[in-house]
Amino acid sequence: MTTTPVSDRQTQREEALIETVVASFDNTPDARLKEVMQSLTRHLHAFVREVRLTEAEWNTAIAFLTDAGHITDDRRQEFILLSDVLGISMQTVAVNNEAHGDATEATVFGPFFVDDAPLIANGGDIAGSAPGQPCWVEGSVRDTEGNPLPGARIEVWEADEDGFYDVQYSDDRVAGRAHLVADDEGEYCFWGLTPTPYPIPNDGPVGKLLDAVHRSPMRASHLHFMVSSPAKRTLVTHIFVAGDPLLTSDSVFGVKESLVLDFAEQAAGSPTPDGRDLGSRTWSRTTFDIVLAPEA
Amino acid sequence: MTTTPVSDRQTQREEALIETVVASFDNTPDARLKEVMQSLTRHLHAFVREVRLTEAEWNTAIAFLTDAGHITDDRRQEFILLSDVLGISMQTVAVNNEAHGDATEATVFGPFFVDDAPLIANGGDIAGSAPGQPCWVEGSVRDTEGNPLPGARIEVWEADEDGFYDVQYSDDRVAGRAHLVADDEGEYCFWGLTPTPYPIPNDGPVGKLLDAVHRSPMRASHLHFMVSSPAKRTLVTHIFVAGDPLLTSDSVFGVKESLVLDFAEQAAGSPTPDGRDLGSRTWSRTTFDIVLAPEA
Repeated sequence: MTTTPVSDRQTQREEALIETVVASFDNTPDARLKEVMQSLTRHLHAFVREVRLTEAEWNTAIAFLTDAGHITDDRRQEFILLSDVLGISMQTVAVNNEAHGDATEATVFGPFFVDDAPLIANGGDIAGSAPGQPCWVEGSVRDTEGNPLPGARIEVWEADEDGFYDVQYSDDRVAGRAHLVADDEGEYCFWGLTPTPYPIPNDGPVGKLLDAVHRSPMRASHLHFMVSSPAKRTLVTHIFVAGDPLLTSDSVFGVKESLVLDFAEQAAGSPTPDGRDLGSRTWSRTTFDIVLAPEA
Repeated sequence: MTTTPVSDRQTQREEALIETVVASFDNTPDARLKEVMQSLTRHLHAFVREVRLTEAEWNTAIAFLTDAGHITDDRRQEFILLSDVLGISMQTVAVNNEAHGDATEATVFGPFFVDDAPLIANGGDIAGSAPGQPCWVEGSVRDTEGNPLPGARIEVWEADEDGFYDVQYSDDRVAGRAHLVADDEGEYCFWGLTPTPYPIPNDGPVGKLLDAVHRSPMRASHLHFMVSSPAKRTLVTHIFVAGDPLLTSDSVFGVKESLVLDFAEQAAGSPTPDGRDLGSRTWSRTTFDIVLAPEA
């Protein structure tokens, strides 16, 4: 913390400016927008005053945001990465997902979801051309009273073993993502890839920031889920891999203990749940039972 | 303010997340960067928690920043506009320009400065092709002890009477900007344009925000100065026009009373200071004596 003394007169000038800016939002017709903008104003000004932000640092911040804007396109979302590495995404998840009975916990959405991923049948394979170890994922979708939720929509997406999502390649491949529908008993299953660790994209301004603060860009290994059912709260979450050393240093603070699952390694040749012949390949399996909270 | 009750367990989760994120910066080699990032983290999280930011609002914020990034280019700087309308630019000026004796006060830099504006001699005209009423500006550059500062570099820039800076036109005109040098007595003078009000660029996300909060994009009429001299603090400021009704509602909070000057209207045909023949045109004149603080 800075210890530069600030005169009373200076303090008054700085506080008067805040009140002027806050008052400039007084005529906002939407009460919620007014609340958000006035709170944002107070907190940003408090930050500038607390650190006595220099004009050079302000310039650096403007250049950082400009660079983040210019690297962002349909396939790259640097502002989400920034929110993620500052823990803002996870805090937003936290304030909107207060623990509700035994409902499955939420985590960050991330920047790699794509609408209209292909529909697969239960037991289908989401991997497409994505390389990696096959992984059988199965489980149920239920409400907080234990009732199955047939027809629940399950979106799944993940990186390949080289650490990239399909949208990070310059071709138009669709791989490592799909959606499926829980069956009449609220059960689901699919083949995916055993999740592997990867760095968040770190060739842009967020990567430079992580480098400057000596933080790793690595994410704990995970598989994304978004699960929805009528009159239920849509769940955005991941499942993580027990034993992954990155669980305690996830670059976006997304790990929750309840989401860490056993991914049991299976020897080559061991029988698969659906009789699929994987030849000489090893594979893994996990069970993820999902509980959706009632709609807020 | 929201009044939703937050459980103790929830409060603990939210606070624990903040401490985890703050701790992630502990190994930053640069102590100042560490201080800035940890303070920013605490203030942004406090904002998210105070307003209980919804996931939809978070999405809106990401989309806003993305749009701001995409409209920003070499001639348009939406992030500076955003900083300006939130009063962050002016607060940064405030914390870096604590009152120093009788030194001239600073105000916002704005997004329209250009390096390498043409050099003009004292008495020259900065207007170029920019339309507007001619305005004679004269004054001195001195230190806080009253000593003249010969050779001080004076950058001046302003909008034309249509409300646009040269860089806002799609041609490559250079107009309404120049630099000049104080003479051996520390005096300077030039012809510019009588400042007129104009809106900050409001066809982008910042304009939409101002619209949604029922704030005007109009800036009080002003002429920009940046003045530098060896071993003196570089001054970034404007001069404003006494009587302008926008002085109390400047969209970027830039007005300071000490910077409001009399721009005396001159009848057509009245003799000009340098004998220039303005034909049937009216003109104005003002005096701006500049005092530079010692270098920090």
